[in-house]
Parts: sequence; structure tokens; C-alpha cells
Amino acid sequence: MSEPVAEPAPLSPADIEARVRRSFEKQRFMATLGATLTHIAPGEVDLSLVYDERLTQQHGFLHAGALATIADSAGGYAALTVMPSDAALLSIEFKINMLSPAEGPLLVARGRVVRPGRTIVVCRADVVSVRGGTEKLVATMQGTMMVVRGRGLAD
Amino acid sequence: MSEPVAEPAPLSPADIEARVRRSFEKQRFMATLGATLTHIAPGEVDLSLVYDERLTQQHGFLHAGALATIADSAGGYAALTVMPSDAALLSIEFKINMLSPAEGPLLVARGRVVRPGRTIVVCRADVVSVRGGTEKLVATMQGTMMVVRGRGLAD
Amino acid sequence: MSEPVAEPAPLSPADIEARVRRSFEKQRFMATLGATLTHIAPGEVDLSLVYDERLTQQHGFLHAGALATIADSAGGYAALTVMPSDAALLSIEFKINMLSPAEGPLLVARGRVVRPGRTIVVCRADVVSVRGGTEKLVATMQGTMMVVRGRGLAD
Amino acid sequence: MSEPVAEPAPLSPADIEARVRRSFEKQRFMATLGATLTHIAPGEVDLSLVYDERLTQQHGFLHAGALATIADSAGGYAALTVMPSDAALLSIEFKINMLSPAEGPLLVARGRVVRPGRTIVVCRADVVSVRGGTEKLVATMQGTMMVVRGRGLAD
Repeated sequence: MSEPVAEPAPLSPADIEARVRRSFEKQRFMATLGATLTHIAPGEVDLSLVYDERLTQQHGFLHAGALATIADSAGGYAALTVMPSDAALLSIEFKINMLSPAEGPLLVARGRVVRPGRTIVVCRADVVSVRGGTEKLVATMQGTMMVVRGRGLAD
Repeated sequence: MSEPVAEPAPLSPADIEARVRRSFEKQRFMATLGATLTHIAPGEVDLSLVYDERLTQQHGFLHAGALATIADSAGGYAALTVMPSDAALLSIEFKINMLSPAEGPLLVARGRVVRPGRTIVVCRADVVSVRGGTEKLVATMQGTMMVVRGRGLAD
Repeated sequence: MSEPVAEPAPLSPADIEARVRRSFEKQRFMATLGATLTHIAPGEVDLSLVYDERLTQQHGFLHAGALATIADSAGGYAALTVMPSDAALLSIEFKINMLSPAEGPLLVARGRVVRPGRTIVVCRADVVSVRGGTEKLVATMQGTMMVVRGRGLAD
Repeated sequence: MSEPVAEPAPLSPADIEARVRRSFEKQRFMATLGATLTHIAPGEVDLSLVYDERLTQQHGFLHAGALATIADSAGGYAALTVMPSDAALLSIEFKINMLSPAEGPLLVARGRVVRPGRTIVVCRADVVSVRGGTEKLVATMQGTMMVVRGRGLAD
């Protein structure tokens, strides 16, 4: 935890958005799922996912792993919005509760920072299913992200 | 928790294997990822996954969500091996720690039942990365599965 | 999950409060810690705890286990406010993040129901440290409670 | 993560044991519960706790928070056995499943390191209830500890 003497200058909102989009586009798994970035603000990132049979479990609902994937990425990118520009982001761990069967047709994962820290950023993500303008909470995640420096990783 | 008076007869090992394979084949997300069933025994199910760029995060490692997906399915199917034949399985929640970057070329998720219960089955899954005969632990999950009856679901 | 045909009548707010107080008073660990009930409403229970050296870890902060205890009880009693009168409550599992050292002098755990279900109730609890009218979030919990019937337990 | 150039020399088993005992004695909450250190080895620490009515929940079983407390301390001290001598230990988060009612008369929490890292140590703890030489698993925990340097904390 011997932090660098000079902290990098904070990023502008436009720089934060560009940074999140650039990293998101490198997450090949997001394209495989069909997830898209639909909201970026300091401490907040939303992802959207259209229900697709390729992503289902045995009863035809979205697989818990697909929900976990968009929750983890939404929470992680929310964390990235509050991280120094010279740092990279790693998911240390997360915990997710599945609350209702996820049928879609649209899913939105809303990642929010709960506590930004120098080394650890704690975040949360709610996943809602949207049908005809009505939302239903289908999963909720609480996770821990690490600010990584000096390991040859960038975000 | 008013359990039925007559419990269904326990399944034979061959029936257990057939049941897991039948349900697994309905999990479309497993085919999308390329995951396969590689071990089934009472209380134990292993899944294998070959590293694929379509499943990566921004640094080129397997996405935490892909690891969570195979861990959840391995743990869930381990739980299914100890469930009554008239019950279906739902993932209530899980927690996963990412321990090392997951590079492959082969990943194996080993689901194991920690405690079988009438309503709740607690399981664990370790995910290892295999290269040239050497294993590295890349993630570990602890999760809770529910035995569901009478909701029109089957497994 | 063969639910009883006749659901018990819902409880009045006064009955809910009486039920929570009665069960809380039986939790001997609450008295040992010095925790008190400070808010009860449908889906919401707050507990308060005065910092005490008997509850500390090695650096003089409140032990993570003491924070977990009041978070679990606050979340559990929030869940009890939405449970049928003939059901008892069991903690299945919880996950807690420690966000800041907990120094007091006053700690408040705010339990809230995230999703009430017939068998499973998911809840959350934030623990804040209060000093001179200012609050600091020190821990946040996400947990799973089970509605138990017919096992000889009551709440 | 700019680590110090010179790592401190590794500790001898006797030094590890002395370090754990010294820190444990400062955890006032352990004395309040009546928990004692019963096993220390590299990567392993066990705590024992005698059932006491002061630690119970509303049905007379040990409170989930008491189980969480000994699990967290056992896991944390297991982590401390693998940490550099100039580092202190903080619990970032843990998740615990309650598997059976904990009645005692003796409880043992077995903390084990799952993965030692430079900054993050992941651990696990099983809590067993012991009666007449027979053990029953009553809870299992998975948690994340952080290696802290340069914040004025020591262990």
C-alpha cells in the first residue's frame, strides 16, 4: 500500500465514459452475450441484455451465470468510473441472489459503487427484467473489486 | 415444509447420471459456452470448458461470469444428484472468489455437495485451470440450491 | 412446497412489532452485546449498539463478527415482519463486506427486505457508525432467510 | 501495489505461533465469547468455543453471529500465518452458510488458507459441533482478507 507520491489527475466525465467504453469493447464475453452499455456516470454503469435462448438454463429462464456476468461487469465498470487513470480493475469476488425467474424480454443490470477506496471498491448491482414498461427485480449482487497498479494491466 | 408422506424411491447411479445429462442438455447456455459434463457421481459433478476468446474479459482472461457460470452449474448438478426424483432445482444464491487469472487452455469446475438437506442443498465448486497436466486453482464458489416441488418444474 | 390451503390472516402493525420484540428478547446474544431494537416497520428493522471494548478486534475496532451479528439480526427481523404468523425464521446464509473501521460511539444496523417470498426472504442490512450526528457506512450485508413451518419452531 | 523492494524474512513456526497468540489476545471479543486458540500451523488455525446460553438466538441455538465471529477469526488467523511480518490483517468480507442448528456442547472453527496472495488472502472456515466424540458440520465460511502495510496497523 505504499501509494505513489503523485496521484494522477482525476478524469473528466467524458474521459470516464471513453475509458469504460474502451474497456467494455475488449470484453469479448459481452459481445457473445449480446450485452450493451446503456448508462455511464460517476459511480454508475448500466448494461442491457436482450433475452436469448442461447443463454438459458434447463427451465428456459436466463441462466444464473448470465445474470452474474452482466451484474459483475456492471458493478466492475461502476467501480472503474471512480478509479485513478493509471489503475486497472480486477474482480476479487461477488455474491449474487437470484430472486425471480429471469424471462425478459429485456434485462438491465445496474451497477453502483457502494464504497470507493484506494485499494478496494465495493459495489452492488441489481438486475431487473423489463416487460412492457414494468420492471421486476430478478437478481441482486454485492461484490468487491481491486484497484491494481504496476502489474502490466490497464483499463 | 409439510413434506409428502411417501418419499419417492431413491435413484440408482445410472438414473442419477441420466437425469443430470438430460437436464444439462437443456441448459442452452452450456452449449453456447462450449461446456461439457465430464464426471457424475453421487454428490459430485465436474464440467470442462476449453478456453475460448469469445468468453474473455478486457485483459484476455476468462470472464469472471464464465467461471461463475460453470461453477454454478457444476455445483447445481452436484446438488441434483442427491435430490428426490420428483423435485426440481433452483439456484438461490452463490458467492465466488476469483483467485488467479484464468487462461486455460482447459478449465474444470468441480461441484461438490457440502450438505444435502430436504429443502436446501449447500454446495461448493472449485474451478481449476489445466495446462500440460498441471492444475492451478482459479476460482472457488460456495452456493445454496433449493429443492422445489409442486411448481410445475422438473429436472 | 405443498403450502397449507388456508394462509393465516396477515398481522397488524402492532402484532408485527410485538412479535419481533418477543423473539428479539429471546436472543440472549443481543443482550450479551448490548444491542437494542430501535425501529420496527413492515420490511424494516433497525438495531442499535453502543461501542464497547468487550466487542473489539485486535486494533480496537468493533470485531467483524459483532457487525455481522447485528446485521444478521436486523436483516432477519426485517424478514420476520413479512412472514406468516405460523412460520419461524432461520438464517440460511449471509455475506458481509467491511467498509471502514467501526469505532462508534454508536452503531446502527438497518435491516431491509429486498424480496419477500413464500419460502425464501432475501434481505440486506447496512451498518453505520454515528458520531456527533454524522453517519459513516462501516459494513453492508446481503442475506437469505428461510420461512420454516412444521418443525416445532416458532417466532 | 508497488511492493517494497526488500521482503522481510519469513517467520519461523514458533514466531508464527507467537504472532497469532499475541494478536488473538488483543481481540477482546474472543474473551467475551469464551473462544480459545486450539491449533496453529502454517495456513491453519482452529478456535474452540463452549456452548453458552449468553450466545444464543431465539430458539436456544448458537446465534449465527457467534458462528460467524469464530469462523472469521479462525480464517483471519489462518491468513495471518502466511503474511509477511511487517503486514497487518483486515477482514474485507466473508460469506457464511448455516448448515445445522448449533447446539454444542463444543464448537470448533477450523480456518484454512485457500490461496495466499501478496495483497489478498482467501480463506475458508468450517465450524463443527462436537458431542461425545462425534462431529457435525454446522456452518461453512468463505472469506477474503487483505494484507495491509503502512497504515500504522500491526499484527
